[in-house]
Amino acid sequence: MKHDRTQPKPSIPDIVIGRLPVYLRTLRLLADEGREVTSSQELGEHLGISSAQIRKDLSHFGEFGKQGTGYNIDFLCRQLQKILNVDRIWPVMLVGAGSLGTAIANYQEFESSGFRIVSVMDEDPQKIGQPIGIGLVIENFATLQRRVQELGVQIAVMAVPAHAAQRVANQLVEAGLNSILCYAPITLAVPAHVRVEYIDPVVHFQHMTYYLRAE
Amino acid sequence: MKHDRTQPKPSIPDIVIGRLPVYLRTLRLLADEGREVTSSQELGEHLGISSAQIRKDLSHFGEFGKQGTGYNIDFLCRQLQKILNVDRIWPVMLVGAGSLGTAIANYQEFESSGFRIVSVMDEDPQKIGQPIGIGLVIENFATLQRRVQELGVQIAVMAVPAHAAQRVANQLVEAGLNSILCYAPITLAVPAHVRVEYIDPVVHFQHMTYYLRAE
Repeated sequence: MKHDRTQPKPSIPDIVIGRLPVYLRTLRLLADEGREVTSSQELGEHLGISSAQIRKDLSHFGEFGKQGTGYNIDFLCRQLQKILNVDRIWPVMLVGAGSLGTAIANYQEFESSGFRIVSVMDEDPQKIGQPIGIGLVIENFATLQRRVQELGVQIAVMAVPAHAAQRVANQLVEAGLNSILCYAPITLAVPAHVRVEYIDPVVHFQHMTYYLRAE
Repeated sequence: MKHDRTQPKPSIPDIVIGRLPVYLRTLRLLADEGREVTSSQELGEHLGISSAQIRKDLSHFGEFGKQGTGYNIDFLCRQLQKILNVDRIWPVMLVGAGSLGTAIANYQEFESSGFRIVSVMDEDPQKIGQPIGIGLVIENFATLQRRVQELGVQIAVMAVPAHAAQRVANQLVEAGLNSILCYAPITLAVPAHVRVEYIDPVVHFQHMTYYLRAE
């Protein structure tokens, strides 16, 4: 099985795409509560954004609701899963088996959202061979290239220290991965065909403190 | 010491504020490499955004560089720290001492960025009293109100399951906290004076898979 990264679909703004997973998450929570129908008004109130924005975002992809009757939650969930390509399970490689990597490996929400951690890698000989997550054993990062091919992985999560992050990213790109979720507090230099998303709690904290003052 | 949340400063777009911590992080990495001067061009290349955007963002706050000589890194760092109010250490309360909470409690980057986890709370009697992080002991969430006042905390991190998140958030708001970083995969309902930022790896994964295809 060969995987290729497609070009971004040019007509739909990336910021709209970024909101779809939040819509999907909210709809699935409503479905878990036994709800069958919702509206852009209700979604907007849940999410703190305008109902017009939600309708506009969804209109890029077709007609999902009828005037006056709202959205069928189950139907809209399945449509959003198709649009986001998560109507399947994507294998994910996790690099870094420290405290954070262990928490990520244990995270229960991935599978129901379209993702499965299929391999956890580290460079530390003390860690290699130890069990981690759900039925996994920490593997030697030196086997990356082979394992990426065996497992057909395109997506990696990096839970490594900042000082190691660029080197690890280079190796991930060389091994053929094209999508990286980076928990290291650094902006990575990668080729144009590789997409990187970042998670850094400090960025969120500092964004919040801008609006605070201590007396 | 009493803490109040100020109103958002209206003239500067929130999206600009959101980029400042990334600029600061990048500048500090350059400083760590022994660099003394940089330019909007160099920063832009590091971050994959235009130098014009960086100059425009910074121009909201004053004049930080001279035409032709670039930015003094140390000076610009100190200015950004002042603007973001992280020229001090903010106490932070962490709620949830599971796998993720433990990773957050162990995270080494907070202190140098303006934050210190001063209290970790959980509801699980098995966890309360156990050591965690750097010199902390897991405290009983039932003591929240008192501890928030004692410690003068405004900021909380929530590392709790989705099903508990809204209830915990309500209690945090009631205890007087006004800034919440939420790792639970849910959008919280909070009063207008409370700011919530979210970290959800699934949202990032699903954003990336939109652009992928499996053959």
